[in-house]
Amino acid sequence: MADQDAQSPVGIDPPALPVLRWAEPPEGPALVLLDQTRLPAEEAELVCTDVPALVRAIRTLAVRGAPLLGIAGAYGVALAAARGEDVASAAELLERARPTAVNLGYGVRRAERAYRQAIGKGADPERAAAVALAEARALHWEDAEASGHMACHGLALLDELLPGGGGHRLLTHCNTGALVSGGEGTAFAVVLAAHRGRRLRQLWVDETRPLLQGARLTAYEAARNGMPYSLLTDNAAGSLFAAGEVDAVLIGADRIAADGSVANKVGSYPLAVLAKYHHVPFIVVAPTTTVDLGTADGASIIVEQRPGVEVTELTSPRAGVAGEDAVGLPVAPVGTAAYNPAFDVTPPELITAIVTEEGAVSPVTGVGLAELCARSSQVTIS
Amino acid sequence: MADQDAQSPVGIDPPALPVLRWAEPPEGPALVLLDQTRLPAEEAELVCTDVPALVRAIRTLAVRGAPLLGIAGAYGVALAAARGEDVASAAELLERARPTAVNLGYGVRRAERAYRQAIGKGADPERAAAVALAEARALHWEDAEASGHMACHGLALLDELLPGGGGHRLLTHCNTGALVSGGEGTAFAVVLAAHRGRRLRQLWVDETRPLLQGARLTAYEAARNGMPYSLLTDNAAGSLFAAGEVDAVLIGADRIAADGSVANKVGSYPLAVLAKYHHVPFIVVAPTTTVDLGTADGASIIVEQRPGVEVTELTSPRAGVAGEDAVGLPVAPVGTAAYNPAFDVTPPELITAIVTEEGAVSPVTGVGLAELCARSSQVTIS
Repeated sequence: MADQDAQSPVGIDPPALPVLRWAEPPEGPALVLLDQTRLPAEEAELVCTDVPALVRAIRTLAVRGAPLLGIAGAYGVALAAARGEDVASAAELLERARPTAVNLGYGVRRAERAYRQAIGKGADPERAAAVALAEARALHWEDAEASGHMACHGLALLDELLPGGGGHRLLTHCNTGALVSGGEGTAFAVVLAAHRGRRLRQLWVDETRPLLQGARLTAYEAARNGMPYSLLTDNAAGSLFAAGEVDAVLIGADRIAADGSVANKVGSYPLAVLAKYHHVPFIVVAPTTTVDLGTADGASIIVEQRPGVEVTELTSPRAGVAGEDAVGLPVAPVGTAAYNPAFDVTPPELITAIVTEEGAVSPVTGVGLAELCARSSQVTIS
Repeated sequence: MADQDAQSPVGIDPPALPVLRWAEPPEGPALVLLDQTRLPAEEAELVCTDVPALVRAIRTLAVRGAPLLGIAGAYGVALAAARGEDVASAAELLERARPTAVNLGYGVRRAERAYRQAIGKGADPERAAAVALAEARALHWEDAEASGHMACHGLALLDELLPGGGGHRLLTHCNTGALVSGGEGTAFAVVLAAHRGRRLRQLWVDETRPLLQGARLTAYEAARNGMPYSLLTDNAAGSLFAAGEVDAVLIGADRIAADGSVANKVGSYPLAVLAKYHHVPFIVVAPTTTVDLGTADGASIIVEQRPGVEVTELTSPRAGVAGEDAVGLPVAPVGTAAYNPAFDVTPPELITAIVTEEGAVSPVTGVGLAELCARSSQVTIS
């Protein structure tokens, strides 16, 4: 039973399983993922012992979220190398698993380049595989560090934009916490910093249809961290803005074009329009690895179209417990066509600030964004 | 399997069951409803033989939609009268079953007044019950007629606002067709008129979380009528606006205040803001019985807050087949609180026009609205 008067969840254990880990059991190396499709009903690990298994995990969203996809991609290359497989074709498979998150390709190419350079310098394949793995681990560590910096910069910005002492009422969309990152996430890391600093009055969690990452994953992370939060259908956000209940919107990003246009989970753009209409700050939090200076503008971003069945059928996380495949329950008439873009694109004029590990850019301009990227210590991959 | 390339459904039969009918079998009178909670998986009738059963049907949304609630309420009073029960307390129970739709109270009070006046004129209870039933039937008939007039006025307005010859691409929210009306509905009746007049290029159907009336009911009605339609999550509408794929938004209303503020299914207000931002007409279609001149403005409208479990659990219409109660599948962590308003309120400045059976008011002003209501032949209930 849950309604507006319900208390915050109590008695929730700390996260039992890492979101992603490299394992080297006697039977061979593997990338072990916390299967995000089964949360919050079950914390189950998904063991990927080869690249096709990892590609499946990426496509089915068992592992997801822009920064984490980059880390998973890098480890995937290391996995192919450790198994003595063709690294170049493994990298190609991984990079094409999902089209919108720029980080996936970044992580893949970075580990592949490290491998290739090692081979070029005369390393044997085993040694080069170790180099690729070290590169994946470096990316993993850098992402965790970037997460901490984003939380810092984001909270400073919030405190500046919202000087009142009553605490921040923040609205977020999709999932951007520890489940998407080597650290504590992007937008959610800022919320968590506000919570730890006793400046979070309320977190409004959009359920985020069709795959309910907000209900399943962000609510799970909010509950585990003991935050004051409420879940809402995506379309109920309008009432909250109208009632003056939202002080700022914080979201992540899957790709940021050179002009500052942000591709993020579908539903971000309508929130940006609502925020503009209500004079509420709309803040994007993402590492500089999410900025793609090679993509000129929003119109150039390729948006992934996902199967209509995600909309025409309901799938419960519980349905996938105990090794059974999830079974969809039809809600629309048989044969109903669906429009199901995974992302939408928010233009820079609707974004108050983009916060990266190098600081914030506000107002959002291509020049400001390029400066932040130039300052970044992240490895550049052409 | 449903995706963007899927064909429109074929081989769909015409509606088998009336949405609502009065029955007088030997065992006594009853109001027989098409159980809307089971659509589209099953067309099943729900027989209400007394007022408490009808109140349950209203609360669980087996019968729903502002105009139809008015008709159901009027028949409910007739049912109480026919059973020789206390009509005044039955009317009170019915009127309080749901708070936001003004039509419910209108229909209830209208039948009750007819009954009371008959008694006052010396009729015996049986005769007065017949009078109440006749009044319910009159309201039913008037609503069907109003629906036809709204369709006419609405289509004329669309043709005026969208003069291009390519056909209209219309977006709608929730369900406003034959399932909410004595006739073919409100906003959906306009879409249907455009379809019949070969001027409907595309109907975009918002799924309408949390209860998915768009996916379950509007898609069902669109499919039955052979319309070109696509279903989308509510938060995907933003991308459609941004891509210039929406020519107009058409919605119904549950209560229209004297200043032209419109309470309608939650998610209507964000669509109005998006429409304004994209210079797309936003049109409300409702009979004059939905206008409540006794409610001064949007802030005075009481918005029904529904149980959070509608958001924290998924319920499939299939789950309720064969007499079993629907079982909810949890999607959020146990104990998650939810903000779940059933409606939101759109202020007149965001509404291009309100279309009633008496014509359209545009721009929306209190004076214009009052004039339309004064012109209406609908019985006035103080």
